Amino acid sequence: MAAPRDAHTRKAGTLDKLNSRGDDVWVASAAMDGTQPQAHLIPLSLAWIDDCVVVAAPAHQQTVRNIVESGKARLALGPTRDVVMIDADFREAINVNDAPADFAERYAAQAGWVPRQEGGYAYLVLRPQRIQSWREANELAGRTLMRAGRWLM
Amino acid sequence: MAAPRDAHTRKAGTLDKLNSRGDDVWVASAAMDGTQPQAHLIPLSLAWIDDCVVVAAPAHQQTVRNIVESGKARLALGPTRDVVMIDADFREAINVNDAPADFAERYAAQAGWVPRQEGGYAYLVLRPQRIQSWREANELAGRTLMRAGRWLM
Repeated sequence: MAAPRDAHTRKAGTLDKLNSRGDDVWVASAAMDGTQPQAHLIPLSLAWIDDCVVVAAPAHQQTVRNIVESGKARLALGPTRDVVMIDADFREAINVNDAPADFAERYAAQAGWVPRQEGGYAYLVLRPQRIQSWREANELAGRTLMRAGRWLM
Repeated sequence: MAAPRDAHTRKAGTLDKLNSRGDDVWVASAAMDGTQPQAHLIPLSLAWIDDCVVVAAPAHQQTVRNIVESGKARLALGPTRDVVMIDADFREAINVNDAPADFAERYAAQAGWVPRQEGGYAYLVLRPQRIQSWREANELAGRTLMRAGRWLM
């Protein structure tokens, strides 16, 4: 097992993942299914814009509806043994037809695709509140890098 | 973009992932947080035993409580552009101290670790009901490989 990374190294690694081109983020959300809460989970292409995670999906999709209704998402960047876990608040949904050109360009440049103008696609803007990062068991201590929306280092 | 794989190739690839040694599975679950359903998501070491996904975690952990209470989990095997998505029913939780030796050995052999006898660890046995597998957009058609607990091919 490698020596545990310090907080600044983990923050830098986290920002590298958030800024990497053509990567996906695992997006977990929840809704009621009858009387039981039910989790939903899908991979979506990611951009990191103005300290928010931005994904794009059809507004009618389960994940989008769950996040808009619950106001929350839990995000993961992998692989599973070099993870970044993010608890995020839903900030806004922007219909792709209404998105500022600069915003759409930044999303396309990082995510590597342009959401269709048809099909009701929306950008979801998700503001991290808590970020944790670890590789192996010896990095579980010190895994919290952001709390209440603020970097701890 | 590569040509889409046929159903049998996708099933074989899915079983390869389920049987691979030392891999983790993303485990999404949900619970109520006040009045809103809230998703939880963590990576856990995986074994594939008797057509069930088996993970191990402390029984007091949020993910375990969510799955036991809701009876459901949504699982993902990555990477994000070669995914297997599994909707699973919770079948049983087995305290590690009560697990049959053969079961514990199979878990340890595939997952690559032995849950501690202390700390209230339990095996969670999760039975897939729906399995989907895809790589790129051209594989979204035909992505469902199992429905209602039965392989479609």
